[in-house]
Amino acid sequence: MPISARNQIKGQITDIQLDNIMAHVTVKIGENEIESVITRRSADEMQLKAGDRVTVVVKSTEVMLSKD
Amino acid sequence: MPISARNQIKGQITDIQLDNIMAHVTVKIGENEIESVITRRSADEMQLKAGDRVTVVVKSTEVMLSKD
Amino acid sequence: MPISARNQIKGQITDIQLDNIMAHVTVKIGENEIESVITRRSADEMQLKAGDRVTVVVKSTEVMLSKD
Amino acid sequence: MPISARNQIKGQITDIQLDNIMAHVTVKIGENEIESVITRRSADEMQLKAGDRVTVVVKSTEVMLSKD
Amino acid sequence: MPISARNQIKGQITDIQLDNIMAHVTVKIGENEIESVITRRSADEMQLKAGDRVTVVVKSTEVMLSKD
Amino acid sequence: MPISARNQIKGQITDIQLDNIMAHVTVKIGENEIESVITRRSADEMQLKAGDRVTVVVKSTEVMLSKD
Repeated sequence: MPISARNQIKGQITDIQLDNIMAHVTVKIGENEIESVITRRSADEMQLKAGDRVTVVVKSTEVMLSKD
Repeated sequence: MPISARNQIKGQITDIQLDNIMAHVTVKIGENEIESVITRRSADEMQLKAGDRVTVVVKSTEVMLSKD
Repeated sequence: MPISARNQIKGQITDIQLDNIMAHVTVKIGENEIESVITRRSADEMQLKAGDRVTVVVKSTEVMLSKD
Repeated sequence: MPISARNQIKGQITDIQLDNIMAHVTVKIGENEIESVITRRSADEMQLKAGDRVTVVVKSTEVMLSKD
Repeated sequence: MPISARNQIKGQITDIQLDNIMAHVTVKIGENEIESVITRRSADEMQLKAGDRVTVVVKSTEVMLSKD
Repeated sequence: MPISARNQIKGQITDIQLDNIMAHVTVKIGENEIESVITRRSADEMQLKAGDRVTVVVKSTEVMLSKD
C-alpha cells in the first residue's frame, strides 16, 4: 500500500515504553536510533515489542534541517 | 543548542528543488535518503545547496510506525 | 500494512491541482470532502488522478476539536 | 471564526479517555470514527464528554493519502 | 468557538506572498514576527491581506523548546 | 545552529508538568504564554525547570490563522 509520506525506512524496535494514552518507541536504523511517540492503542493493536521489524514513516513536511 | 526534537541525524544534501514558497531537499544519510520540504526562505537564508552537511531534525510525535 | 496513524478512511479523489513542489488533492468521503496537501512527487509516483479510490490517513495527534 | 485549517467536519463524541497530560477522544462522523489526541487541559477547559457535538479540525498538510 | 489548540495569539498581518497552492503570511505580534504557511485557498477564502487583524493558532504538540 | 523552522522566540519557563512519557511546559513570552507538549525524556535531558530561559521553536507550516 503506497502512502504519500515520502520517508519510509526499515528498522528494528529496541525499546518500548507504555503509558495510558501514549507509547514511546525506539527503533534502530543502521547506526542511528529513531524515537517515535504514538498512541498506546496503536502499540497494543500492532502488538509492538522489542525485536519487531518495523518501517518508520515520516512526512517530508515534518523534516527540518539545521546547519552547523 | 539542544532542542527538544529527539531525532537529529547528520547527512549530506544531494538535491534541492526551489519553488516560490517551498523547497524540496533530499539528504543522504548512510544508505538512506530522507526528503524534507521546508520554506524557500529558509533554504535561501541557510544558503542550502547540494553537498552541504546538514542535520535532519524530526519530532518524535511525527514518526509513525508500520509493520508488514 | 498496518500503520500507527489511527485514522484511515476510504474515499475517492474528485480534484487534483499540481504545482512544482506541492499538490492539492480533494477527496470525497461520504457526504464530506477532505482536502490533502502532499508533495508533487508523491502525487506523480502514485499517479493520483480524479476518480481514484484512496485512503485518507491522519495521525490522531493532528486532529483538533472545537465546540460551538 | 473562520480558521485556515481546511478540514472541519461535525461529529459527536462517543468516548473520552483522560490521562494526566493527554486525552484520547473518539468522535463519530457519519459511518466513520475519528480519533483525536489532545491535551488534558483542553479536554477539561472545553468540558468535553461523551455525547458532545464537536467539530473535528485537521490541516490539509496533515492529511496523507494511500492507494491500494 | 473554542478549539483544542492551546496557543492562540492576536496579531496583524504585515506581509503575504501567494503561490499557486501555498501562501506565506507574516504576522506581527508585539515585538515578534510569526511566519505562517497555509494553503492559497484558505488565504483567498479568508481574503487575507496586509493590515488584517488575525489570531495565530498553534497546537502545543507543535511547539519545540531549545536551550542555549 | 540555524534551523529551518522559521519561528524562534525567546521566553522563560513558568510551569512544567511531568508525566511518564509527555511533559507540558508553559513559557512566558512578553505578555503571552505559550504552551508546549514535548517528551518527558527531552524535558529530563534538557533539565528544564521553571525559570529557565528557552527558545520556543515552531515550523511555519504548523501555524494556522483565524479571523474574527
